[in-house]
Amino acid sequence: MAPLPSGSTIGIIGGGQLGRMLAIAAARLGYRTIVLEPEGDCPAAQVANRQIVGAYDDAFALAELARDCDVVTYEFENVPVEAVNALVADVPVLPPPAALEASQDRLAEKTFLTGIGLGTAPFRRVDSDEELMAALSEFGGDGVLKTRRLGYDGKGQRLIRGLDAASGAFAEMGGVPLILEGLAAFEREISVIAARGADGAVAAYDPAENVHRDGILRTSMVPARVSAATAEAARQAAFTILEALDYVGVIGVELFVMADGSVLVNEIAPRVHNSGHWTEAACLVSQFEQHVRAICGLPLGDPARHADCVMENLIGNDVFRAPDLLAEPDVDVHLYGKAEVRPGRKMGHFTRLGAAVGKRQ
Amino acid sequence: MAPLPSGSTIGIIGGGQLGRMLAIAAARLGYRTIVLEPEGDCPAAQVANRQIVGAYDDAFALAELARDCDVVTYEFENVPVEAVNALVADVPVLPPPAALEASQDRLAEKTFLTGIGLGTAPFRRVDSDEELMAALSEFGGDGVLKTRRLGYDGKGQRLIRGLDAASGAFAEMGGVPLILEGLAAFEREISVIAARGADGAVAAYDPAENVHRDGILRTSMVPARVSAATAEAARQAAFTILEALDYVGVIGVELFVMADGSVLVNEIAPRVHNSGHWTEAACLVSQFEQHVRAICGLPLGDPARHADCVMENLIGNDVFRAPDLLAEPDVDVHLYGKAEVRPGRKMGHFTRLGAAVGKRQ
Repeated sequence: MAPLPSGSTIGIIGGGQLGRMLAIAAARLGYRTIVLEPEGDCPAAQVANRQIVGAYDDAFALAELARDCDVVTYEFENVPVEAVNALVADVPVLPPPAALEASQDRLAEKTFLTGIGLGTAPFRRVDSDEELMAALSEFGGDGVLKTRRLGYDGKGQRLIRGLDAASGAFAEMGGVPLILEGLAAFEREISVIAARGADGAVAAYDPAENVHRDGILRTSMVPARVSAATAEAARQAAFTILEALDYVGVIGVELFVMADGSVLVNEIAPRVHNSGHWTEAACLVSQFEQHVRAICGLPLGDPARHADCVMENLIGNDVFRAPDLLAEPDVDVHLYGKAEVRPGRKMGHFTRLGAAVGKRQ
Repeated sequence: MAPLPSGSTIGIIGGGQLGRMLAIAAARLGYRTIVLEPEGDCPAAQVANRQIVGAYDDAFALAELARDCDVVTYEFENVPVEAVNALVADVPVLPPPAALEASQDRLAEKTFLTGIGLGTAPFRRVDSDEELMAALSEFGGDGVLKTRRLGYDGKGQRLIRGLDAASGAFAEMGGVPLILEGLAAFEREISVIAARGADGAVAAYDPAENVHRDGILRTSMVPARVSAATAEAARQAAFTILEALDYVGVIGVELFVMADGSVLVNEIAPRVHNSGHWTEAACLVSQFEQHVRAICGLPLGDPARHADCVMENLIGNDVFRAPDLLAEPDVDVHLYGKAEVRPGRKMGHFTRLGAAVGKRQ
């Protein structure tokens, strides 16, 4: 793939903050952007060249996107696969749709991961109360019941402790296809933001250690408190996934770190990832620029970081901390242009830099 | 001035690359932007929320800008002062119009600078051939003849060596008001990018050492090869200017460094400045974010840098170096979204990071 020349147009499906940061990174490399998003004046469109206001599966909107873009990408993994498949005849779509398929359904995702030799928590398909009870029994009575599709930020999940607690759970989750995952007794959660270029080169940022609350990412700390061997295992897992999917772009891979230092892959997100926002403050090439480089056929950037750091999300009313945070040195504040503050809504984030990493001579 | 809340709108007069980078910085802080620029699809508008297509002095366009913005700024110093004065009744304009007046006319600028006790090269008003000859004689026959207004990137300048060379020069420069500046035997050129907040706080980035070719900035190197005392003198000169103008925002101050380490102020630009582009790559808070912070009443950011660096402009065909530059580590590439490559046109820049500065513990 020859690099897309400056002035080419990138289509972005989805208009949230990830699309916004992608659009800014694209602009810095001289690219134009068109955002497809049903909500007008969305965060991404505010900094894009243009928005097509339309549903993600609107045939006319998709045709317009294909016509006017040189490459199309997406900022969330629940883009309808049929929509993407309608595009691929007319315009390259990256990351490849296979990555969407592997990540949209938790059962397909875990099956894919174990199929390429990566460890995951144990899992069972659950399509009925009977299957739930059987699976729970196998896992000693405890597990996390999740919808197979359309879950994010902890939505569509339910922790079950004991067979009694499972009574009626299948129906209460809506009677939709579910998966039961065994509880992994992990010591911490980490993620790797990795990328694969059109030339097959791969690069990974250092793993971040993540803390979730109410199912939503709160903080990502770099470096993660793991051994070098664990960090390398996490990186290698990400690379294995990238190769298996013949991937182009940035991927977020969430992993559990077990007591013995081994890792289990929890989930993959075929896109830039909340736990990689720190790269904007602590690296010369952010995950957003890295993604743009990859999908445009440019060489990947160096994922080295120049400082340790902690990224913290500003959720709901947290956003009102911004003025105070702006008064602190070594803090990078990034807000998303969302007019309405709602509980649980990601309004922005900040990254606090710590010790410098003396990489350069 | 209470800080402008997130979601407020910043008007930017001028749609070039400086406006583009300001708009991106504004977006990262949650602000909206409207660009006033006669040329549609200009670099700044591509990343702004909206463009008002109109002349800088179009009364209807200005009224619209005043109506829809919470603060107005500008990205070049040749904004008509009358236009700005038409705005100030309805919307705050920052930096203050007095800074425009002080910088639009080279004679007023140098008179202002010497009036506040700063050194400059000697200068004389030239409104006729006779005045030119008289001034040249005073300066030993050599000098730089410049139009008083509307010069940039070396345009409207002419080096004169010897009285004979001056013959007819006044008419050839268009018979407009001129200034003759004596040649300062400087060792190097530096600039200070400084800022003053709405609360009167000031901050300055480390001076950059600049190299011009054909009157256009080619490279800015940080740190400049000057003594600590010279760097401090340059910073203090910038602060003196900021105070004298009751300034709010970022200013670029260009200085000559003489053999004895003293500095002369060459010119001031009441805006973000090409020689401060390196701050995007080497500082947590760039000059663009610093300007947005200042004009929005937010606290100034820390101007510390984490690495030495050299910024180089990509002028005209230089832009085709971008793919190779992107393959290098420690290089930050920034392109401006200009469709047409023209000789002498600034198409982008890159910053190469050098030794890390171990500021943090």
